[in-house]
Parts: sequence; C-alpha cells; structure tokens
Amino acid sequence: MDIQELLNKMTIKEKIGQLVQVTPSFFSEVDGTGIITGLMGDYEIEGEDIYEVGSVLGSYDREEIISIQKAYLEKNRLGIPLIFMADVIHGIHTIFPIPLALASSWNRQVAEEMAELSAKECQISGVHLTFSPMVDMMRDPRWGRVMEGTGEDSYLNSEFSKAFVRGYQGEKGELSENFQRIAACVKHFVGYGAVEAGREYNHVSIDDLELYQHYLPSFKAAIDQDVKMVMTSFNPIKGIPSTGNEYVLKKLLRKQLEFEGTVIADWGAIAQLVTHGVAENKAQASSMALRAGCDIDMMTNSYYDYLESEISSGNVSMELLDSAVLRVLSLKKDLGLFLDPYRGALEINDEFIMGKEIQKRALEISEESIVLLKNTDNILPVTKSKKIALIGPKAVTQDVLGAWSGYGDPLQAVSLATGLSKEYEQIEVIPISSVNHISEEEKKQAVQAAKNNEVVILALGESSEESGEAASKGSIELHRSQIELLQTIEKENNQIVTVLFNGRPLDLREVEKYSKGMIEAWFLGTQAGHAITNILTGHKNPSGKLPMTFPYSTGQIPITYNHMNTGNPLIPERQNEKYISKYLDIPNDPLYPFGYGLSYTQFSLQSQLEIPERNDDIVATVKVNVTNTGEVSGAEVVQLYIRDLIGQVVRPVKELNGFEKVYLKPGEQKTIYFDISPEDLSYYNMELEWVLDDGWFDVFVGNSSQAPKIGGFKYEA
Amino acid sequence: MDIQELLNKMTIKEKIGQLVQVTPSFFSEVDGTGIITGLMGDYEIEGEDIYEVGSVLGSYDREEIISIQKAYLEKNRLGIPLIFMADVIHGIHTIFPIPLALASSWNRQVAEEMAELSAKECQISGVHLTFSPMVDMMRDPRWGRVMEGTGEDSYLNSEFSKAFVRGYQGEKGELSENFQRIAACVKHFVGYGAVEAGREYNHVSIDDLELYQHYLPSFKAAIDQDVKMVMTSFNPIKGIPSTGNEYVLKKLLRKQLEFEGTVIADWGAIAQLVTHGVAENKAQASSMALRAGCDIDMMTNSYYDYLESEISSGNVSMELLDSAVLRVLSLKKDLGLFLDPYRGALEINDEFIMGKEIQKRALEISEESIVLLKNTDNILPVTKSKKIALIGPKAVTQDVLGAWSGYGDPLQAVSLATGLSKEYEQIEVIPISSVNHISEEEKKQAVQAAKNNEVVILALGESSEESGEAASKGSIELHRSQIELLQTIEKENNQIVTVLFNGRPLDLREVEKYSKGMIEAWFLGTQAGHAITNILTGHKNPSGKLPMTFPYSTGQIPITYNHMNTGNPLIPERQNEKYISKYLDIPNDPLYPFGYGLSYTQFSLQSQLEIPERNDDIVATVKVNVTNTGEVSGAEVVQLYIRDLIGQVVRPVKELNGFEKVYLKPGEQKTIYFDISPEDLSYYNMELEWVLDDGWFDVFVGNSSQAPKIGGFKYEA
Repeated sequence: MDIQELLNKMTIKEKIGQLVQVTPSFFSEVDGTGIITGLMGDYEIEGEDIYEVGSVLGSYDREEIISIQKAYLEKNRLGIPLIFMADVIHGIHTIFPIPLALASSWNRQVAEEMAELSAKECQISGVHLTFSPMVDMMRDPRWGRVMEGTGEDSYLNSEFSKAFVRGYQGEKGELSENFQRIAACVKHFVGYGAVEAGREYNHVSIDDLELYQHYLPSFKAAIDQDVKMVMTSFNPIKGIPSTGNEYVLKKLLRKQLEFEGTVIADWGAIAQLVTHGVAENKAQASSMALRAGCDIDMMTNSYYDYLESEISSGNVSMELLDSAVLRVLSLKKDLGLFLDPYRGALEINDEFIMGKEIQKRALEISEESIVLLKNTDNILPVTKSKKIALIGPKAVTQDVLGAWSGYGDPLQAVSLATGLSKEYEQIEVIPISSVNHISEEEKKQAVQAAKNNEVVILALGESSEESGEAASKGSIELHRSQIELLQTIEKENNQIVTVLFNGRPLDLREVEKYSKGMIEAWFLGTQAGHAITNILTGHKNPSGKLPMTFPYSTGQIPITYNHMNTGNPLIPERQNEKYISKYLDIPNDPLYPFGYGLSYTQFSLQSQLEIPERNDDIVATVKVNVTNTGEVSGAEVVQLYIRDLIGQVVRPVKELNGFEKVYLKPGEQKTIYFDISPEDLSYYNMELEWVLDDGWFDVFVGNSSQAPKIGGFKYEA
Repeated sequence: MDIQELLNKMTIKEKIGQLVQVTPSFFSEVDGTGIITGLMGDYEIEGEDIYEVGSVLGSYDREEIISIQKAYLEKNRLGIPLIFMADVIHGIHTIFPIPLALASSWNRQVAEEMAELSAKECQISGVHLTFSPMVDMMRDPRWGRVMEGTGEDSYLNSEFSKAFVRGYQGEKGELSENFQRIAACVKHFVGYGAVEAGREYNHVSIDDLELYQHYLPSFKAAIDQDVKMVMTSFNPIKGIPSTGNEYVLKKLLRKQLEFEGTVIADWGAIAQLVTHGVAENKAQASSMALRAGCDIDMMTNSYYDYLESEISSGNVSMELLDSAVLRVLSLKKDLGLFLDPYRGALEINDEFIMGKEIQKRALEISEESIVLLKNTDNILPVTKSKKIALIGPKAVTQDVLGAWSGYGDPLQAVSLATGLSKEYEQIEVIPISSVNHISEEEKKQAVQAAKNNEVVILALGESSEESGEAASKGSIELHRSQIELLQTIEKENNQIVTVLFNGRPLDLREVEKYSKGMIEAWFLGTQAGHAITNILTGHKNPSGKLPMTFPYSTGQIPITYNHMNTGNPLIPERQNEKYISKYLDIPNDPLYPFGYGLSYTQFSLQSQLEIPERNDDIVATVKVNVTNTGEVSGAEVVQLYIRDLIGQVVRPVKELNGFEKVYLKPGEQKTIYFDISPEDLSYYNMELEWVLDDGWFDVFVGNSSQAPKIGGFKYEA
C-alpha cells in the first residue's frame, strides 16, 4: 500500500476524517444496511460522514468491532479501514495487577509478559491499539492516577516503558505480521504527573531542567522501542496545554525525542483549549492543535467541524494536514490493516481469553507484584494449621481489580476470602461492608473473631474508585474507621497481619503501629486472592519493592528518594542543629523508602567496585555477590545508585542506575555485574545540554534506596 | 567623596575587604588599642586584616557599634567606615506585628509607618541597614518563614514591598541627609518561598513563566523605590543556587529588573555553593559568586581567603571586583557614612526607643493587623460587664513577639492576660504551660473556669519558635492537646472566643467547629495584649484581611486564590460530575480565602464599571460606593479582581488588581475609584514577552477574593 498515493486521492473532507475519532455509539445501528450517527455533547457526525472517520475508541467487544468495521468498509470510498483503540491498561478480560503493582515487581519481564498476554486477549477481541503504557513521572500520591504509572524514578519508568511497549508491540516491524501484537500508545506527553496539589486535571508548572531530567526519559525509552503513538497531556507546559503546544509536540517530542509516529489528543483535549482559555473557540483550537502537531482529535468536533474552514482561510496549512493524515495512514499500514482490517479477529479463538494459561501467568505476575512491608517476629508466613480470622472491608469483596479494568469481570475475580479458604481450614470470616464506615455489630463480631483465633488477617484499603482518573485525595491516610477497627482488634489479639489493597502510597503510620505483619497487595487483578494467599502461606516468597516512596504523612508530599541536594542538608552529624533542611514536627525520612521490600529469607550482598584500565565505554564495573543466607528460596532486587558529587547544576543525592532481580535457593550464590558508562554519569545542565564533567561519583549498592555507599571513583574524560 | 578615586588608591586586599562581612564577635576585644579577631567555623581573620573588612552584621547595640566603628577607623588606612547591618524585620526594640500580620492590615500606610518607626529606633541604635523586607511570594504554609512575608499575591507583595522600602529609606536620596532613615535590603532573590514540600532550605524548581509572573514583581517594586540592597536566596534557580547564578543576578536582577545597588549573599551562601555541589571548593565558589554578581560575602571566608588568588590566576577578573567594590562604596556614600560614620548615633536620644509615641503607634498598627475570622451570634465584642475565663497556652505568656525579634524584650511585651485585666473586672485566668501538652490538673481547672464564667476567651496557637527561619512544619494543624482542650471546654460552655497566635496559615477546621468567635492575632509584638483587648472589648473594630489562604487541610497545599484555570474546572454546574478537577475527600475551597476578614459593622458595596471614551491610559474605571450600614465605625478593604478570559497562555481564574481600605462611620458613604490601565491587563507569554491581547476581561469587586463579578469589558488596542 502506497500511502502517499492513497493520500493523493483523498478529498480534504476524507483527510480530516482520518483525524477524527469517535466512540462506537456513533455507529449506533449497525445492521449492514445503514449506520445512524450517534451524538455526544455537541458532537454530531452528519449523514454519510461517519464512513470517513479514521478511528474508534472504547470498544472492547469483538462482535461490535467486527460489525462496525464491516459496515464501514462497505461504504468507505477508498477502503481505508478503521483503527480500534481502547484503554487496556492492565488487561482486558484477564485483569493483571495495576501498573504501580507491576512496577513493584522490579522485574522488566513481568511487565513485558503482562503486555504480551494482554495484547493477545485484545487481538482476539478486535482491539488494535491500547492507550498504554502511562509513563508519567509522578511524586504526589494524592493524585489518583499514580495507580496507572510505574513510580517516581525516571530510570525505573524508562525500563518499564520499554518493557510494556516491547510486550504490546513485539519487535520492530512485528505488528504488521503478528496480529497477536497490538500497537501501544505512550502517555501523557508531558508532565501530567505534576498536577498541582495532586489534584486531577490541575495546573502544571515544571522548570525545564526537571522536565528534561525526570519527565522526558520514559518517553524517549518508548520511542526507542518504536512505540506507535503518543498521547498528549491535559496540562499546560510553559503555560500552554500540550495539545496545542508547538514547544511540546514539535520541539520536545518530534525534534528532541525524534518521534515519528502518530500523536493523539487525550479525551476532549482539543476542545479543552477553549476551556483552558488559550483559544477563543473550537475553530481556533483546531488549527492550534494541528499546528502544534496533534494528529488525532479524540472525541471533540473541533477537527470535524472547523478544520476545513481553518485551512481554507489560511489559518493552518494543507501541508500540516497532509502530514498528520500520512501518519495515521502509516499507522494503519504498520498494523497490517490494509491486508486484514480485522487483524485476524474473524477467526474465533476464545479459549485463550480468561483461559488456564493466562490465569496461571496472571497469578505468577500478581505474586511478584506483592511487597512485604513488615514481618515482626516472623509472623509471616502463617502456617496452614493456624486458626485464622479474616476481617475487614477488603476481606470478601471482589473489588480487587483496581481502576481502569472496565471490561474485566469482577465476578470472576478471586477475593481474599476465596483465596484463603482454599488453603486454610480453620478460618472465620468477618466482612465489613464499607471502606468508610463500620457498624457496631461489625465491630463486635470482629473483636469476637479476633479473640477466637490465633492470627488475624486484616484486609484494609481503598475501593477501586478511590484511585485512577479523577480520583485525587487530599489525605493519603486510610479511612479513620479502618484505623479504629485495627486498634480495637489489636487490644484483643496482637497477632495481626494487615493486607493492604490500594492504588497509591498511603500514610501507614497507624497501620504500622498496630500490625505485626504488613503486606502491600495493591490491586492485583483477577488472581488477587490466590496470589496473596500464596504469599501468606509461604508457598511463594514475596519479592516486590516499592516503586514510589510511602511518605510519613501527607505533609511530606512531594517526597522522593532522589531529591536534590541542598545547601543545608540533614546529615547525621548535624541532625540536632536548627539551621538545616528539616521539619519541626515530622522526620525528613519517609515511612517506607523507594525500593524497599522484605523477604522471608535473608540475602547477603558483597559488592566490589572495579575500575577498568582506560576504557571509553565503561567507567566502572560494580560486581555484586548475592547469597541467599536464609532457609527458603527467594528473590532479591539488587539496586545500584550513583551520586554525582559536583555538577554544573545541583544534582540529586542519589539516582537509581541499575537493578537486577536475582532468584536464589537457600545457600545459593550468584554474581551480577553493573557496568557504568559515561552516559550513566551524564546529565542536563542549565542550558539543557547533555553534559559530563570530570569529577567524583559515589556508588551505593543495596536492596532499597537506602543502600549503603560501597565506594567512589573519579571520572576523567 | 569620589569613590572611583578612592577605589584607585586601594590595594587588591583592601578591595576584597570591602566585600567581606563579619559579626561583631570578630571584634571581640575592642578597647581602643587593639582588636582581637574572633572565629566562626573555619573563618578566621588574621591580624590587622580586620581593619579592612567592609561591613558588620548582627549588632543591635549602640555602644558596641560606636566602639567598633571608632576603633576600626583609627586603623583603616583610607578611612572607609564600616556599614552596620542587622536583621530588623518587624522592629528592633519596639516589636511590631510580624510582616504576615502587617500585611493583614491591607493598609500600605501601616507597613510604611512600621518601617519608618523601626528605622528611627535603628538609627539611635547605630544600625545603618536592615535585611528587610522579605518579599518572597509564598504559598506553602508549612514553610515557617511565611511569617516574614506578606502573602501569596504578587500585587499585594509589591504594594507592601514599596511601602516597607519607602518607610525605611524615605524618598530617593534622603538616606544621605536624614539619618533617621536606614537602608533597606530586599530579599531573597529569588524563589526562596517555593521550597519543595515547604521544607526550609529545600530545593526549588520554578518554571520561567511562574517566576516572571509571581516572583519578580515584588522585587521590581522595591527596586523602583530605590532599594539599596538585594539579598540572594539559598535556593537554586534552573539548578544553580542564586548566589552563584549569573542568570539570576545578571540577567534577571541587573538586566531585567535594572537593579544598580549592592547584592549581598545570604548567611553562608557562598560557601554553600560547595555544599550544594556546584563548586568543588570555596575558591571556586568565590569566583563563581563574584562572576554571578554577588558583591558581599556574608559570613564565609570564601572571598577573604580565596578571591585574590582566583583573580591572579585569571578565574575571575579584576574588573568584576572593582565593580563590586564600587557598589559597596557607593552604598556607604549614599548612607552618608563618609560624612558621619556614626550616622548621628553619637548623639544620645534614648527617649524615643520604647517611648510613649512609638508604643502608641505600635498599638494602632497591631490593631489593624488583627483579622476577625468568625463571629456567630455576635459573640464579639464582649461587653466589659461579662464574667470572663481566659484559658490557654497563650493566655499569660509574653511569647507574643514572634520570630525575628531577637533584640526585642519579651519582658516588656504585653500578654493577653495583662491586656484583658486592664479592661475586664471579672476575669479568671487559667494558664496552660505548654502549646504541646496539657496536664489533667490544667484541664480540670479549665473546665471549672469555663463553668464559672459567661464567656471563655481561649488563647491558642504556636510558640514563636514554631515559625520563622528553620521552622517548617509537616502539619499545619494546632497541636492535638489544644484541640482537645477546646472540645472539652465547649461541652461545658459554648460561649467561646478563640484567639489565635501563630505565624502561618493553619488548618482551623476543628477550631472553627467549636468556637463561636475567632480572632487571628498572629504575633502582634510588644503591644499584643492591649491590641487584642481593644478588639475584644469593641473599643476597636477589626479590619484585617488574610494575605494568604487558610487551607482546609494540609492536603490542599499549595493552594492560592489566583490559581490557574484548568481544562476541567470545578464550576457549580458540574460539581457532581466525576471528571473534573477536584478531590474525593476534601473540597477545593479553602477554609478561609485570601482577602477574607469580618467586621463588627456591615458594609454595602455598590459597584459600577465605567468604560471611558477612547483613552489610551485608562481602559475602564470601577466606581465603588461603600456604605457603613451597621451601627459602629469600621473599615472595609474594597478589593478589585480581574480575570483575563483568553490569553496566549493559561491565565489565573482571578487576580488582585487594586484594593483600598475605607474608614467609615455608621451611615457614612464614600466613593472610591479604581482605574484599569493596559498595563494592568498585560502578562507574560510563553516567550516571556510582556504582552496584551485584545479580548474580554471579567471584573470582580468585593471584600475578599470570593468577590462577585460585577461586569466585564472588551479591550481593543
């Protein structure tokens, strides 16, 4: 298919149509003979125009997708197929852990497999492209959408960004041949994670250095992996919302990051240029967005109703329209849609969806995503002979899928009660009906159950709706009723293991005070109950690590492990001085640091810093001998951090530069190596140049961001 | 005095000496015959070098200053006098309200008079220059230093910036003749108020647009007022601490803001370039700072020990040194120090200090700084015949001066108990000994007193040490013990007036719930007790307005009235929708908005928007008839806000553009006018150009930032 030739045949209306995206409701009666247009807000597609739109979003249904595509192609003059896009964030039918939980695996393979499995279910369902991964740097747990990201660190985000894209798309070029792969769309470009006060859709203000240092790398990683699409962010950068911002889409995305694929506006974002107050009306918004480099208009009528007149009046050029259309056509070609507009979906292959194979893998992925936060007196694992009380608002609920799982079936999700009841024989379950309230009767039963049993498994947390899009919270504490339940129970029986279901880092000070064991179970998806049970029984050894700091309190926000050095740092020698950077009432340290997570076994790490003879590619090599010194198999995430002591600009106190998850049997030892390259030591200076200076670097190796310093070296060009 | 000629006579060591500033301890034995050098950290001035330093900071003592100057001049080869600088923030002997309280007056004259009176006491004390005003934009009440600023709004900050400088320095050129004026030093250039997570000395990251829009104007205002000195900020801008940052000191300060005076480093800030990690050692730091344009090295040995060799090795030029020295000499000349190195301090004039006149003015200034937050059922004023219980940790304490009042004498400060006892005859006082703890005995007595009396005056708050420099807090709630005291008392007697002593906006949700009356008394200084009493009795009618938002909770931070518009704003029609910018658990609105404050009388405002015939200077005029419709005299602060509906960049939802405090007797009416100029409608675009577009503007007039819209107009160039 020569897409340039195809473009040459298109009318301006047909061209604009390729940039228009609608929901399936616009094809509200698909019967093979006629399609009646739907309506959304003030958005109405007239008559036969529906046969010219370029793509559909939000259908997850194989029959619907096939019938729309079929009817469409019968009428589309040039036979250009639709692309079907959908929000498949952590699975479509089989729901996997939320991305923040996947990131807790600190295992790139886990993310890649999740994406690959998810792509397979998508392909069978007719979906061609998913609006995933979200790779936004984020450091404010008030923001509900942190559940959809992979944490606070740009290196970790980049590694997961690559893994997700590889998992969805496969190798470069694979998409057009292997329909089990789908296209990925990396989002949100750029800076959405920095919403002010953690409030969804709020203003964003990021200085250039921070943007380059923390926000761009995860997009660069996806682009290097040939990601097909980039979604704009709602927020402004330098005062202009990304969707209409030439600096963002042209200078940063196209030029700086060398992205050549298709750009799509986030839902309604082109019309929001008017709400934001940077365009007077949708006509202006349409030319502003096209000029900036936004190819597809998601769910507003700006391009559809206004772009033609904007072009004819000269406000924006036909050349820009042509480029945008070519990118959309190119994406269709890359997806193989001109060869098979159904990408194999006509062949029914239902046994994979929700099948045994994918459930087995989902279970393993979920197990790797769990983080053991506390295990005093080795209360965990809990032997199966123990008498157990399972109590709490998250005890029996099937609300374990998390946000962004709209097409997943909660009725097929494994609750904690279901999981536990398969393994423990003596179990008394006391459900609490709400995460925000507890009745006196429930409390009474809970206390009685705590008395009756040896160990209390307390299932606390948030509902799925408390995180995700448009789910910001001003306090990151659990609801008071849950804390009181915990305190009440603890008076009767202090053998408490708290299992947490949540989509954001929480202030767990009170939970920590009254629990002997603590498991961060996030929202693990379909297999949640089984995965947690396997950890509780010790059948699996927890190996997750936090991808985002758990603050001491809301008042510490924003807090990240890789904060910038200051002129009056809090260092042990000075901690009792007044004039240093600290609070009067709370510590500087978080409750649980980035990279933190326990295991049922112990590991010893012996690190050695090796400086090679003159070598332009490798400045230093860190050799780490990891030994499982405990009595059960397990995995440790070995983490390498580097500090640049002197820079042209202030540098972070520590930066993650490498990690590897090492699986070891008791007594087993493995040796891993981290090579440090000049690139690893480079950074952006005030002029936003990528520079590397001669000078000293400290090296830290350990199992969390509080890793000890193992040495240092001097770099000389 | 020809300072160029003077410079020509100076050796390089003498030149560098002018840039060196030390504390009086360096002149530790001043006896007319010899001066022995002091020592601070690794800073030691050797031998006779002490006779070459340029200035002294931190002496507030007339005798000490005179004797140091005298001894110094006997040995200084060229007879160049020292400048004596000090931290006189809200008074030296007589302590006035903290700046945040002064700003609550919304009366420029109040700030100007405070500065003028403070300057007089300084002059008698020998002080030549004060490190005031602090005009940092600040929007994070966790930061303890908010007590030293004038709030969250750049217009309000600018108005007070001008007023303070005018009050200290008088008219342009007045300093050299009128020794009752002293030089002002505006600080901290720039961005210190944006410390991350409100934590003192923390990193700062501000995007250019925000910097230009919110942070620069208050400095520009001071510079237009001929402020003599600017202090650098500790924090970085674009990655480099201001003190060594050419972009900040050259491009922004000298070029953009056209500052020609002297720049001084904040305490230790040049050496902190090393701690920050942007200089390898103090030698590098010294040339970096001089190159950036920092003239005076406050309390590090960087310039003293290293600048000479840095110049001789060519790392920084002699020309830059000469320029810096010329600026210091010029300041000395401007202060008239070459004519009288004591600036009249030899003539003893003690009766002014702490005298009747200044106390009277301090009392009036304090009264204007008080904000009435709540007055249900007109519980206030409290008639003198009532039986009163005064309870609380701030009831009898003389800790009412606030931070930055080191030379003020707390023993001469009027406590609330002292103030009240002069007016109320039936008063039972129950002091609580700590702001962080209450004993059972104290609680018992408090409850009994609440029972015994008709009205409870509950004095709650923070100690002075809980705000100011190095006094950040992770929670802005009052200590739990105080809330519990309030709750306990309320059960016995709900006629509670809470008087608050604090240096930052607080989360007052609980206080509001249990109090019928609430008075924000900040730290009012020497006359605190009398001023509050005059409000309580009704002798004075409160007229203050908040210069900074009081958040609903810590989790709303940062929050300001003038936040940027978003693409999904919370507007009444959409408040129940999910996909808008809001929180799930707390409101978007603060507890008390910027500009808020009640009165004992009522005012009616009738506003009219008048659009003149073609006039290039005035776009619109707002005419406001203000009437006192109540029964007592009082003052209302009429506030004008403007909203730019469409801009090249996203614009704030509202911006303060004018205010006037109107004093009215019962029934009296006055008419005030606000002229709106094209300048008022201009703003910075993405390229940081100062622009004005044609288009619509909304106008709001009222008595807080929640002022109603009174109309709109279209601007056309």
